[in-house]
Formats: sequence, structure tokens, C-alpha cells
Amino acid sequence: MKRTPPMPVDRALGVTAPAGFRAGAAAVGVKKLSEKPDVGLLACETDAQAAAVFTQNKVCAAPVTVCREHLAARRTMRGIVANSGNANACTGRRGLADARAMARLAAAAIGCPEEAVLVASTGVIGRLMPMEKVAAGIERAAGKLARGPEADLAFARAIMTTDTRPKQAGVRFRLRDRTVTVAGTTKGVGMIAPNMATTLGFITTDAPVRAALLRKILRRAADATYNCLTVDGHTSTNDTLVILASGLAMDGCGTPALRRTARGKGRTAEGGCATYASQPIAEGSAEAAALEAAVFAVCDSLAHQIADDGEGATKTIEILVTGGASDAEARRAAGAIANSPLVKTAFFGEDPNWGRIVSAAGYAGISSGPETMRLALGSLVIFNRGTPVEADAARLKAVMKAHDIAVHLDLGAGKGKARYLTCDFSYDYVKINAEYTT
Amino acid sequence: MKRTPPMPVDRALGVTAPAGFRAGAAAVGVKKLSEKPDVGLLACETDAQAAAVFTQNKVCAAPVTVCREHLAARRTMRGIVANSGNANACTGRRGLADARAMARLAAAAIGCPEEAVLVASTGVIGRLMPMEKVAAGIERAAGKLARGPEADLAFARAIMTTDTRPKQAGVRFRLRDRTVTVAGTTKGVGMIAPNMATTLGFITTDAPVRAALLRKILRRAADATYNCLTVDGHTSTNDTLVILASGLAMDGCGTPALRRTARGKGRTAEGGCATYASQPIAEGSAEAAALEAAVFAVCDSLAHQIADDGEGATKTIEILVTGGASDAEARRAAGAIANSPLVKTAFFGEDPNWGRIVSAAGYAGISSGPETMRLALGSLVIFNRGTPVEADAARLKAVMKAHDIAVHLDLGAGKGKARYLTCDFSYDYVKINAEYTT
Repeated sequence: MKRTPPMPVDRALGVTAPAGFRAGAAAVGVKKLSEKPDVGLLACETDAQAAAVFTQNKVCAAPVTVCREHLAARRTMRGIVANSGNANACTGRRGLADARAMARLAAAAIGCPEEAVLVASTGVIGRLMPMEKVAAGIERAAGKLARGPEADLAFARAIMTTDTRPKQAGVRFRLRDRTVTVAGTTKGVGMIAPNMATTLGFITTDAPVRAALLRKILRRAADATYNCLTVDGHTSTNDTLVILASGLAMDGCGTPALRRTARGKGRTAEGGCATYASQPIAEGSAEAAALEAAVFAVCDSLAHQIADDGEGATKTIEILVTGGASDAEARRAAGAIANSPLVKTAFFGEDPNWGRIVSAAGYAGISSGPETMRLALGSLVIFNRGTPVEADAARLKAVMKAHDIAVHLDLGAGKGKARYLTCDFSYDYVKINAEYTT
Repeated sequence: MKRTPPMPVDRALGVTAPAGFRAGAAAVGVKKLSEKPDVGLLACETDAQAAAVFTQNKVCAAPVTVCREHLAARRTMRGIVANSGNANACTGRRGLADARAMARLAAAAIGCPEEAVLVASTGVIGRLMPMEKVAAGIERAAGKLARGPEADLAFARAIMTTDTRPKQAGVRFRLRDRTVTVAGTTKGVGMIAPNMATTLGFITTDAPVRAALLRKILRRAADATYNCLTVDGHTSTNDTLVILASGLAMDGCGTPALRRTARGKGRTAEGGCATYASQPIAEGSAEAAALEAAVFAVCDSLAHQIADDGEGATKTIEILVTGGASDAEARRAAGAIANSPLVKTAFFGEDPNWGRIVSAAGYAGISSGPETMRLALGSLVIFNRGTPVEADAARLKAVMKAHDIAVHLDLGAGKGKARYLTCDFSYDYVKINAEYTT
């Protein structure tokens, strides 16, 4: 968990805040309520260095397969086409052809090779994509490609499913006397459980950075944020987290790099970084650390926003487990607590039923028992070394009444630690998911 | 999963149906509603051969620790004392002393050594036992020790927590021209997830069988029934499943075996089976297979009754996974499906959102992908080899409307199979668990 130095996040910054990116969206009725945007397009002026992490679910959706192929073929991307309302998962060969068609249509609209476009879908599993609608949506979204807060929000809204609000986060920092921006958007808020990356997330930056370093930064950031987030313990078929780097913070518009891209055939030289006129950020440098802190801050904010907007959620719960025999053990314990329906319903009921927290850690495959454990809700210790601690009832009630609740379990076995984000489990979670497709 | 030959189960038979057992219960206010029985006592006339499986939760309750000690010290038991309303878990040294005191008080009432009594508690975690009430309850329950349907139900009710009804199952079969009975009771219906044994379950039999064989039979039966059952994926701190065998089906009352027990100091000879005048059932024999089938049938019925009565449940769902690369893989997939809140809420909504089932299998660490899978709800195939299958809408609706729903997922990767029992996830699950302690 690289969190230093913490960078302040601006939720008004979206995917077009970094130089070089434009976005557009359209409402074409892939979602049932046709007035809501459901097709989004993100385009980069340059060959953006690209990195992504995907679901580890064996049942992965067609767009994930297509993204993996495209990223295997090239390290730069020119755009992303995304839709909500249909996951294009469990749709067989037809689904794969549809995902490829989406890339082809978006590439034609942007003016780049098909392989330079990533595809992301989210929504109901097991339904064929309504391709006429989607094709019309790509065309209309391409016609609206623009920069600025309105474009950001239109794209952010186009990927929403049961989300109640769009999710954005951006960070600006100084690099070589220029301002670099990292910004992103994401969606939730059900079928959320970590495994490499969860849900859809799109991050853009204008930092000059090679794909190889970008991959490492993204993986570490995702591991400490998206992968420590759960709404319902169900890893989606479509999880995709992408970062695109235009490099334009350094080069500005109309630089040789940009002209070279416009001329190029979409494929950069092997190992090179043709996008950038200026020197790319070196791995292990202070610049790399600053970029990583910025990417972490954006991912962290987006993950928090997913937990905050978790299906039916009334509370956001941050679970810190320390004292694990290893980080992995602490992570298993934190994940078991965050995923327990008994823990989550207790928080919904504002019921300090802490036995459920301790017992969830107990079945997570840990090496220690209750006799070394210490549990605090907020700043109130309520269980210590195997024995309940009498806590002030009024203060405990105040902790449970708050929207944000901090849980800290120390296993007392070592130095391993982990942090998990989740939300409570309410009547509305059941309602939303009992009525999702029918 | 040894299920042959299937034996018919009689739910009117409880723990005193096998010869040699008496039960009693009392209501003393350990549970909040004091008119409900909350202390139960089960006593065996003979030194009953005993076997048990316990929770694998590292945070295990004091009574589980005491049971493990007693079973390590001796292979026969004379009784069980159980209570509901308080789990005596996370209660430190005081909790352990309380559990030992419960065994001591019960032993005094039955007239046997303290180590010849097992202790089981269920209820809220992290509260000290109200020992004055419990002591009074043991005394009153001992005064009511009796055989018959009324005693069976009193004991079954004394271990209920959020259960809406008592749970019993019994099987009778012929052995050497005598009738042998296996019967049991159990409780649910929250904090139910498999790990060796789940919840409390007490099985009695009058079969002549040694503890060593009893342990093997119980472990196999639990593995295919209790350990393939989930309500909420949360393994309890108190899970205990015990079987006691009096041997009296063969010997009758007043036999030398019984007299020997009455004279004995509670400890049988090492490796011997002093309880029985007649030859104990031999491992690997047809008699052992018959006993195992009976124990399986009782455990299977009790596990079904827990799923049926799962907190807030409106449906019982049996998930069969075949075609796994191994039984373990099939079991992981079935467990992931059974534990997914998205799958469970869809069943509550009678929504055939089968993508959730397939995707739950996908994140269970399986080797195969959707292209080899086949999914049926009831007898309707709705997904085959990676592609949705158009099912008759009216028939699909009828399947989803039923109380009992069969899910069959074939992974298409091998011969591994597993069966899991669960229930749906309703508003009432949330209600019950948001309000459990406060």
C-alpha cells in the first residue's frame, strides 16, 4: 500500500482533464430507460501508452477477451468504447464478434486501427448485444467528442448501471515545471469483489510515461484500492481498469510527437516511446513515485466512491487489519469481515454486534486465535486479548450512527496489514437485486 | 457422497427415539424471551460411544474447547448440556470456566464424571454466560429427563435461536433381527457456512458401534451434508455435531453391558467397547454401510431443514455441480454459487438471472471457462457451451416460482461433482440480522 505522499483529489476532474483526451456519450436504449446515456467513447489525440488489469473470473466477458488481444498486439491505444445495460458476457461467438464490431466502429469514428481501441461493457449477463442501437450510439457519441466537465460527466454517466451518481476523481501535480493531470471515472455498484480489478474504471493522464512502468503502477494501485473493495463478494465477468497516458502535459498540442502520431500507422517501435518528444518518466525515480501517488489517489477515491454508492448502502466501512502473520493473512481476514452478510447487516442495523467481526476473521484461515486479538470500532476498543471490554454505550452508539465507520482489528500475530473497503447491507440491496433483470 | 441405499426419514423421531436416551429442557431467560426453552440436557443410560466434529473457526467458543478436551480424554460420553441465547464465545478465561461449570453441573445431575458430558452453546457472541440462570436451567432440565416425542421436542426447542421451528429426523433399520434407530436434532439458521460441521447438531443411535467407526461415519456424513450447506457464508464459532451410540438396540435394558456401565468409573478400557455385550458393528461390513446410510439420511434431512428455515428464506435451493476437474473444484463452484448474495437475491425475486450463477462459478478458482459449461434451472437448460439457450418463458417462470429449486451446472471439464444446499436472500434476512442483538 504505497500511500505516500497523499495527494488531494478533485472530484470535479474527469477523463478529459488530462491534455489530449476527448469524450462523448449517447443514450440509445441499451439500458431499459432510454433517456439515460449508455454508450460512451473516449479518444486520445496521441498514441496513448496503455496498461490495464482485468477480471480473473474464468467466465470473462467478450470485451475483456478483445481488450486482452489488443493489448497483447500493441502497447498504445487511441480510444475506449464502453456501454452499460448489457455485459456481453456468456454470449459465445456472437458476443465476441459484437465486441470486435464495437472496436471496429469506434476505430472508424476516431480514425485509428481497430486494435487501437479497447472495449468495455457492463450490465446484464447472458443477453446478446443490441448491435444496431450500439452502432448508432458509437456514431452519436463520436459526433459529440469534446473536452471539459460536461464531456467528463456524460462519459461517466454512460457507464453507470445501478449507480446512483457518476464517479470521478482527479489529481494535479508538478513535473519538470509543468502540470501533470491524472483523472479517472468508474462505475459500481453491485457484483463488486476484488480480483485484480473490479468493475469498470478508466484513468487518463498526460504524464510522459511508458506502458511498462504504467502497468506496474496500475497493478500496485489497483491492488491496494480496487482489489480491497467489496460490495457483495461477487467478482464480475467484466472487470476492467485501464489507464491511458497521452504524454501531452510535456509536449503540448501540435508537438512533433502529436504530428508523428497523426502520421503513424498506430504501432510504435518495439520498446520505444514514440509518443513523447520529451524524456519519459524513469522507473524508480522521484517522478515515478509522484505519478504512482497520483494514480493511487485517483484509484483510492474511485474505490471509496464505489463503496459509498454500493447497492442499497447507507454506510461506508473501512476495515483495517493489522498484526497479521503476513500481509496476505491480514488481507484474508479483512476480506472475510468485509464480505460477511452478518457483519454488513449489523452495520445497517447500527448494531455493535462485534462478535460477528471477530468470528469472520476466525474463519479466514488465520494462524492466531481470539486470545491475541484487539478490536476497535472507531476509537473504542471493545474486545481485547480474548475478552470483551466494556465500552461507553453512548460513544459506541455514536460510532455506529455515523455514515463512515472505521473498524480496526489487530490480530496480534505479526506485522502484516491490510485495508478493505465495503458498505453495509440493507433492504435496498435485496430490492435492487431481486428486481434487476425482470 | 455415500447416499446408497437411501433411507426414508421420519421427522417425528427425535433424540430420545433410540434406546437409552432421555432429554429435558427448561426456560430460564438466557434468551431474551424467557418463556422459550433455552437450556437442554440429553442423558444416556450407558457409556455412549461418542464422536463429534467441530467448527474450524480459529475463534472457537469455550464449549467447543471443553468438548475437544473431554473427547481427547475419553471415547464414551454420558450426556450433553446445551443452551441457546448465548454462544459463550470471545469470553476469555471466564467463558472457559463457565463452560466447565456447565459440564460439572450436568454431570452431577446425571451422575457421571465431568469429562463424560459435552457442552454446546449458541447465541450472541461476546457476552458472559448468565451462570445463575444456566445452573437453575440444568437443574430443572435434569428434573424433567424423559423419553418420547415431548422430550424430543423440548430439547429441540431449547437449542433454537432464530429458527422458526424445531428440526428433527430419524431413521429405523433392521440389524441382526433387531430394530436400530438413528435420530437427531439440529438448529440453524444464521451464521451458517460449512467448515467440518456447522451449527449445533446432536445425533443419537442405539446401534452397537465403536467410537472409532462412529467418527469416520460422522465425518463422511457431515462432509456431504452439513458441510455443503450455507445460509450466509459465515462459519460460526460454535459449530458442533455430535453422535452418541448407546448400543441398547441389541442389549436391551438391564443387560450386563448396562450394569457394567453403572458400576464403571466412566472410562472404558483402551481400544475396548465395554458398553456392548453383543459384537460391535465391524468397519467395512454391510452393517457399517447400513449405519452410515442411516446417519447420512438423518444429517441430510437436518441440513435440508436448516436450509428450509434459513433466516428470512422463502426458497430452498439445491445446487448440483458436475463435470468438475475434481470433486474439490465442483465443491468450490457450488459453494461460490450458494454463497453469492446476487444469486440468492435473484432467487428471492424469482428472477432467472442465470449469468450470476455462471459468473459465481467463474470466480471459484475453476479450470474451465464458459465454453464447456451447461446450466439448467429445474429441467430447463438455459446456457450451453458458452451460449444462451432460449428457454420456454412460462416453464422458466414456473421453475422460479417453486419453493424448491434445483440448479445443475455442468462444468464440462471432468468427473468431479458436488452438491450444495442453500436458501434465498430476502428482506427478512436483513431485518433479522440488523436487529439481532439490539
